[in-house]
Amino acid sequence: MIDNAFEVDPWCIRESRLDLDVLAHTESVFALSNGHIGMRGNLDEGEPAGLPGMYLNSVYELRPLPYAEAGYGYPESGQSMVNITNGKIIRLLVDDEPFDVRYGILEEHERVLDLREGRLVRTVVWRSPAGSRVRVRSERLVSLSQRSVAAIHYEVEAIGQPLRVVLQSELVANEPLPAAGKDPRVAAVLEAPLECEEHVVDELGAVLVHHTKLSGLRIAAAMDHEIDGPEDTLNNVDAFPDTARLTVATRLQPGEKLRLVKYLAYGWSSRRSRSAVHDQVVAAAAGARLTGWDGLCGEQRAFLKEYWEGADVEVEGDAEIQQAVRFAMFHVLQAGARAEQRPIAAKGLTGTGYDGHTFWDTEIFVLPVLIYTYPSAAAHALAWRGLTLPLALERAKQLNLEGAAFPWRTIRGQECSAYWPAGTAAFHINADVADAVVRYLDATDDHEFEAACGVQLLVHTARLWRSLGHHDIEGRFRIDGVTGPDEYSAIADNNVYTNLMARQNLACAAEVALRNRDEAAAMGVSVEEASSWRDAAANMYIPYDERLGVHPQSEGFTDHDRWDFEHTPANCYPLFLHYPYFELYRTQVVKQSDLVLAMVRFPDAFTDEEKLRNFTYYEALTVRDSSLSAPVQAIMAAEVGLLDLAYDYLAESALVDLHDLKLNSRDGLHLASLAGAWSALVAGFGGMRAVDGQLRFAPRLPPGITKLRFRVQYKGRRIRVTVTAASVRYELLGGAPIEFEHHGARQLLDGAGLVEPIPALVTPPAPQQPHGREPRSHDHHLRSSRA
Amino acid sequence: MIDNAFEVDPWCIRESRLDLDVLAHTESVFALSNGHIGMRGNLDEGEPAGLPGMYLNSVYELRPLPYAEAGYGYPESGQSMVNITNGKIIRLLVDDEPFDVRYGILEEHERVLDLREGRLVRTVVWRSPAGSRVRVRSERLVSLSQRSVAAIHYEVEAIGQPLRVVLQSELVANEPLPAAGKDPRVAAVLEAPLECEEHVVDELGAVLVHHTKLSGLRIAAAMDHEIDGPEDTLNNVDAFPDTARLTVATRLQPGEKLRLVKYLAYGWSSRRSRSAVHDQVVAAAAGARLTGWDGLCGEQRAFLKEYWEGADVEVEGDAEIQQAVRFAMFHVLQAGARAEQRPIAAKGLTGTGYDGHTFWDTEIFVLPVLIYTYPSAAAHALAWRGLTLPLALERAKQLNLEGAAFPWRTIRGQECSAYWPAGTAAFHINADVADAVVRYLDATDDHEFEAACGVQLLVHTARLWRSLGHHDIEGRFRIDGVTGPDEYSAIADNNVYTNLMARQNLACAAEVALRNRDEAAAMGVSVEEASSWRDAAANMYIPYDERLGVHPQSEGFTDHDRWDFEHTPANCYPLFLHYPYFELYRTQVVKQSDLVLAMVRFPDAFTDEEKLRNFTYYEALTVRDSSLSAPVQAIMAAEVGLLDLAYDYLAESALVDLHDLKLNSRDGLHLASLAGAWSALVAGFGGMRAVDGQLRFAPRLPPGITKLRFRVQYKGRRIRVTVTAASVRYELLGGAPIEFEHHGARQLLDGAGLVEPIPALVTPPAPQQPHGREPRSHDHHLRSSRA
Repeated sequence: MIDNAFEVDPWCIRESRLDLDVLAHTESVFALSNGHIGMRGNLDEGEPAGLPGMYLNSVYELRPLPYAEAGYGYPESGQSMVNITNGKIIRLLVDDEPFDVRYGILEEHERVLDLREGRLVRTVVWRSPAGSRVRVRSERLVSLSQRSVAAIHYEVEAIGQPLRVVLQSELVANEPLPAAGKDPRVAAVLEAPLECEEHVVDELGAVLVHHTKLSGLRIAAAMDHEIDGPEDTLNNVDAFPDTARLTVATRLQPGEKLRLVKYLAYGWSSRRSRSAVHDQVVAAAAGARLTGWDGLCGEQRAFLKEYWEGADVEVEGDAEIQQAVRFAMFHVLQAGARAEQRPIAAKGLTGTGYDGHTFWDTEIFVLPVLIYTYPSAAAHALAWRGLTLPLALERAKQLNLEGAAFPWRTIRGQECSAYWPAGTAAFHINADVADAVVRYLDATDDHEFEAACGVQLLVHTARLWRSLGHHDIEGRFRIDGVTGPDEYSAIADNNVYTNLMARQNLACAAEVALRNRDEAAAMGVSVEEASSWRDAAANMYIPYDERLGVHPQSEGFTDHDRWDFEHTPANCYPLFLHYPYFELYRTQVVKQSDLVLAMVRFPDAFTDEEKLRNFTYYEALTVRDSSLSAPVQAIMAAEVGLLDLAYDYLAESALVDLHDLKLNSRDGLHLASLAGAWSALVAGFGGMRAVDGQLRFAPRLPPGITKLRFRVQYKGRRIRVTVTAASVRYELLGGAPIEFEHHGARQLLDGAGLVEPIPALVTPPAPQQPHGREPRSHDHHLRSSRA
Repeated sequence: MIDNAFEVDPWCIRESRLDLDVLAHTESVFALSNGHIGMRGNLDEGEPAGLPGMYLNSVYELRPLPYAEAGYGYPESGQSMVNITNGKIIRLLVDDEPFDVRYGILEEHERVLDLREGRLVRTVVWRSPAGSRVRVRSERLVSLSQRSVAAIHYEVEAIGQPLRVVLQSELVANEPLPAAGKDPRVAAVLEAPLECEEHVVDELGAVLVHHTKLSGLRIAAAMDHEIDGPEDTLNNVDAFPDTARLTVATRLQPGEKLRLVKYLAYGWSSRRSRSAVHDQVVAAAAGARLTGWDGLCGEQRAFLKEYWEGADVEVEGDAEIQQAVRFAMFHVLQAGARAEQRPIAAKGLTGTGYDGHTFWDTEIFVLPVLIYTYPSAAAHALAWRGLTLPLALERAKQLNLEGAAFPWRTIRGQECSAYWPAGTAAFHINADVADAVVRYLDATDDHEFEAACGVQLLVHTARLWRSLGHHDIEGRFRIDGVTGPDEYSAIADNNVYTNLMARQNLACAAEVALRNRDEAAAMGVSVEEASSWRDAAANMYIPYDERLGVHPQSEGFTDHDRWDFEHTPANCYPLFLHYPYFELYRTQVVKQSDLVLAMVRFPDAFTDEEKLRNFTYYEALTVRDSSLSAPVQAIMAAEVGLLDLAYDYLAESALVDLHDLKLNSRDGLHLASLAGAWSALVAGFGGMRAVDGQLRFAPRLPPGITKLRFRVQYKGRRIRVTVTAASVRYELLGGAPIEFEHHGARQLLDGAGLVEPIPALVTPPAPQQPHGREPRSHDHHLRSSRA
C-alpha cells in the first residue's frame, strides 16, 4: 500500500519522484478523459509502461465466453474494451540515446495533474548514459470542449551542451499489452484486435483507420502537428498499417528548445463508412489546430471553472480529504462530461479493469453525484440505457420474463456476465436504473426527458418486477432467488434492498405513466396494469427478524452461521479469491453494504432505532471487499451519529486510488468509490436526502473538519451549504425560494439565506467490525503521514 | 420415441430389423461389459456406427475446464472417458465388396442379447451389390469370469455360389468419433487421445500399447485368434502405431464356412511399465485361448446362473416388465461385476454420456440393488470411494471444511464439476456415500469392510457435516446453502433430504467409531468429537410448513411461486435446456424426487398422513426431467397405496432405455433408472425397507401383475418373497431364522417359511402431475403396442 504517493495540495495531484514499481498506478491516477476519449497517464515515450491505454467509449472487441458446463441463457460472447490507436507517443532521441527513464539518470521529475486547468504537466531533466542532458516539458489534455480532440504540448531543451535531438511523434495500433493474471477483476487481454483499413500521410500529420476484427467497429485516429524549432529543423511523415510517424530532427544549442504541438482527433462508428469516419477525424484535427494549443487550454479552463462552481466541495481542516474529493470529482466529470448517450464504465476510461464494463455502479454511485452537480451528464448516461432498451427487452424475453432485463455488465448493452448468480440474478440493476431515473426527474423536473426516455425505462422495469415477483398465500409480494448488492450472498429470497427498490420502481412507474398517458398508452399500459404495479408495491414483503430486532438482508440471512473472522488470515482478503462462493454464500459475511444501502436510499422505511441496530449488526459482518462499501457505510455512520467512523470510511472512499487501497488501481480508478467521497461528505456529513420532492439536510461535522461547504442543484435552484461545528448556512445562489428540511424541521430558503444551529448529538456506542477489518483510522493515518 | 424396438421375451433382447436411424441407441442396449471392459454394440465391421465405443473403467483423459469468470476452488481440469483401442472390429470383404449394411441388401438381420448366456449374437444374410450372398454369424462376450478378456466368435458362410472372402480382424486406436452437440449431458469429444508406445505382431495376434497424452495412463490391448477355414486359407498379421490387423483370405464353396475366434485382452496402469502392461495382456490372451471359446461361454453361463439365482425378479402378467427388469439387472451386473475398486459410472461402460463420470447415482440407486443381490460388487464400489479418500480430504481442505468432500462427478476422484451450484454445493453426495456404507454394513454385517474402509468413510463424512452445519440461536442444527437432489433448486437452506441423510451420517459415524475404537483413534476421533456428532444429529433441523401441512423440500421452498406449467410447451422439456437456472431455482418446480426420496429412505421420519400429503404436493410439481425420479416416485406411490401410478412409474424406469424414453440412450444407458426398476418392484410393490437392522415388507400388487417373486440377501440369509394378489409367501433359502415385519407386524422367518395375507387397501385420491407431465399409462401403452 502506497501512502502519500502524491503530495497534498488543494487543486493538484503532484508526483515528485518516479517509482517504476507503481507506474501502472500512477497511469490511472494521471489518466485524462472527457468521457469519449480516455488516455492513461503513460509516459510520452511509450516505455516503460505499466499498462498502455488509449480508449474510446464503447469501442470494444468481442470474445467468446467459454463454459465447461453451458447453461440456457448464458451469454456466448463478451465485450472487452480495446486499447485503440495510441496517439500520445512522442519518442525522443538525444544524440544517439533514446530517452528512456530506465537508463541514464533522471535528475528531476515531476508530474502534476491540475484539476482547474485539466492538464497533465510533466517536467524532467534527464542525463543520458553518455552524459547529454535535456529538459523535457510535456503537457497534455483531453479536451472537454472539443469532444474528439486531445492535444500534447511537448518541449525539449538542451542543457549545458549542444545536442542533436530527434522527436518521433506517433500513432501506434495494436500495442503489445502485459499478460493478465488470474484475478477476475482484471480484463482479458486481446492480442492485436485492430485491423488496418487505411494509412495515409499529410504534410505534418497522418490518419490511421482500423476496425476491430469481430465487433466490426471502425476507428479513425488523426494527428497533426505544429513544430517550433531552430531554422534547420527537418521533418518527415511516414505511415504503415499499424504505425504513423512524424520525425522531427534538429540540433539544439544549450538553452535552445524544440517545441511540438500534437493535435489528436478520434472517431469511431459501427455503421459509417471509412471515408466518413476518416473525414470526421481530419475535420476534428483541423478544428483543434484552428483553436490552437492556447485556445484549447483556455476552453478547458473555462469548462472546469463552470464545473467547479456547481460541484466543488470545500473541506477545511483536512487538506488530504480536500484534495481527494476534488480529485474524485475531477474524475467523475472526466468519465461523464462528454459521454453523450454512451455509458459511464466502472473505471471510466482510465483502465481496462472489469473489461471496461458498466455496472450498477453508474446509477447508484456515480449518477447521484452528477444529478446534483452536473445533471446533463446524468441525463446522457440514462439516455444510453434508453438506447439499449431493445436489447433489455430481448434479454427479458430470453429469460422468460416480461419487460426489460438490463445487463449486469456490458459495454454495448448485451449481457456480458458469465457467472449468473452474481450477474443475471442481480436483478436489482433494473431497479437501480429506475432509481437513477427517479432521482434525476425529482432533481430536475426534466419533463422532456421523462416523456422521451424516463417513462419507458420505468414502465419496462416495473413490468420486469411484476413478472419476477408473486403474491404468496399470505398476500405478500415476494421476489425470490435474486442476488442483492452484497455479492457474498446470492440467489436469496426477498432481499430487502431489492424489494424496496422494486417497490419504488413499481410505484413510480404507475405515477409517471399517469403523467405521460400518450407514451404509456403507446407501450400498452392499461389502467389495470398500472394498478397491479401499485398493488405489488403496496404488498411488497420486507422481512424482519423479530428475535434479533434487525432486518435480515435477505430472508433467512440472520439464521446463517457467522463467518469465522477470527480464523481468517489478513492475507486471505478479498475473501472471494481465497474461499469458494459456496462458503461465502451460506454464511453471514457481507462483501459490501446491502441492507445499509437500503437504509441510505429509503430513510423513511426504517425507524431511527432500526437504523442503529441494523447498522451495528451489519458493521460486524461487513468486510468491505468491494470499494462500493465504504461510502455507504460512511453515510449511515454519519446518520446514526458515529462521526469518527464515518470519517474513516470517507477517507477510505476518497483515498481509494490516491493511496491504491485496493491494490488494483493499476487497472483503472474506482469511480463509484470516488463518487462516494462526495456522497460521504454531502449525504454523510451534510445529511442530504431527497425524499418526496424535497431536500433534507442534517449536517454535522466530525472532529477534524472545521468547515464543509458544498453546492447542489435541485429543481432549478443552486444551493450552497456551509457547515461548521455549531451551525449551518444555507444560501440560494439561483432560482426561486424552496422549502427544505434542516434536521427534521421544515424551512423556507430564499435569497436571504438561513443560518441554523446544529442540534446536540448523543453518540451511540461504537460498533465492532470483523476482526482485522476495522477501517484505517483517518486521524491516525494523518498523524503517521505527517511524521 | 421408439416403441417396441425390441421384441418382448423373458430372457432375451432381440432386434429383427436394422434401423440405422437408431443405431446408436441399439449400440447402448447391446453393450457388453464386466465392469472393467466395456464394449458398445457396434457392428463388427466398424461402420456404420452411431458412437464407436470401447472402454476401460477409469481410463480417462484430462481436458481443461474453461471459465469465462473463474472462481476460487473451481476445478481446472476435467476427466473424460476415452474410447480406447477398439478390438471388436472384424471387417469382411466378399469378392470385391466390403460388407457394409448401407450397401447391397440385408436379407436377414437379427441381434440377440441373451441375458442368461451373457452373449450378443448377430446373424445376417447379406447380398452384395454384385449379388454375392453370405451368412454371417458373430457372437461376442465380455468375460465375467476373466476380467481382462473379451472374445468374438465370427463365422461367415457362402450362400449359393463360391466366394472369395477376406476377414480383417483389427485393433484400432484413435477412431474418429462424431462431434458432440450442445447438450451438457453429452461428453466432450477428445480427438486422438492415444499416443502409441509399441506395436508388435505375433503369429496370429498383435499387441498395441498406447498412453493417454495428458493423464498419462498406459493401455495395452492384445488380440489372438483361432482360424478354422478351408485348407488353403491364408493369413497375415500387420501392426502400425494405431492399427494392428490379422488378414485371413480364403475361398468358400456354397455352404462352406470360415470361422474365426478372436481373443481380446486389455489392461491399463498409471504406474506400471510398458513391458509389465504388455506382458499382462499377452498373458490374459493366452489364458483366454487356453480356456477356448466354448470354455469362455461356459464360464459366462455359470457366472450368470449364480447371479440370477440371487438376483432374479419374476413378474407374472406383464411380459414387458419381466423382460425390462431382467435387462436392467443384467446391465447393473455388467457395470459392477468386475469393477473391483473402480467406480460404477452413471452410464456404466455403455457410452460416453456425462463424460463417463460417476455421480451419487451409484450409491443411492445402483448400490442398494447390488447390496441385496450381489453384495461383493457393492463392497468394491465403496472401496473405490475409500481409495479416493485422500483426494476428498484434500478437496475439503481447499473448501475450508473439515473431513472429506467427495466429488459430485468424477472418474479418478477429483472434482470434475464445472458448475458449482449443481456440483460442489450438492454436498449430499457425501451422505450418499455414507448411506451406502450404512446400508451395506446393515445388510452384510461385514466387519472386515467396516474396519478397513467403512469407519473411515463414515468418520470423515461426519466431520464434513459437523463443519458444514451450525447450531442457530434456537439450538437447531442447520445446513445452509446446499443443493439437494432436485437440481431445479440450488443453494438452499436445510434441504430435508440432505439434513436427514446428514443426521444418519453423523449418528452412524459415532456408532461405528465406538465399535472400531482403534481405527477411530487412529483418525483422532475423541469422545468429545463423537459426542458432537450425536448432538448435531439430535438437533438436526427439519423444516415443516404448518400452513400447508407439508415439508418444504428446503426451507422457504413452499413460499416460492409455482412454475407456470400450463404455459410451458411440451417441447420445452427438459426445462433446463429451455429456461435459465435462475428461473428454475426460484420457483416451485422439481426436476427429480427430493423430499419424496427422503421419505423413501427414512420411512419413520414421516407419519403416514405426512407421506400422503407430501407425495401429493410434490407430484404436482415434479416434471421428471431426470431419469432418477420415476423409480423413487414409484416406490412412494406404492407405499401410499397409489398402485396404478406406481406401476406407470415402474414402467418409465424399467423401459427408459429399451424405449429410449429420454431420447439420449444413444450416449449410454441410464443405470440408476434401470436399477430403479428393481427398487420399484422390490421396495415399491414388495414394500421392502431395511430399518434399524430389520427388514420390513409390505407387498401389494397392482392390477396387471399377477405374481411377483424376488430374492434378497440380508445378514447372511437368502430370502425369497412371492407376492400374489391376496397373500405373500416368505421363504428362507439359506441362513438362520430371522425376524422381519410383514405390513407392520413382526414375524419370524425360518426354514418352514410363512404365508401372510395382504391387508385391504384404501386407495387415496389420485394426485395431479404438472400439466403435460403425467406418466405414460403403462396399461394404455401395452394395449396400443399390441394393436
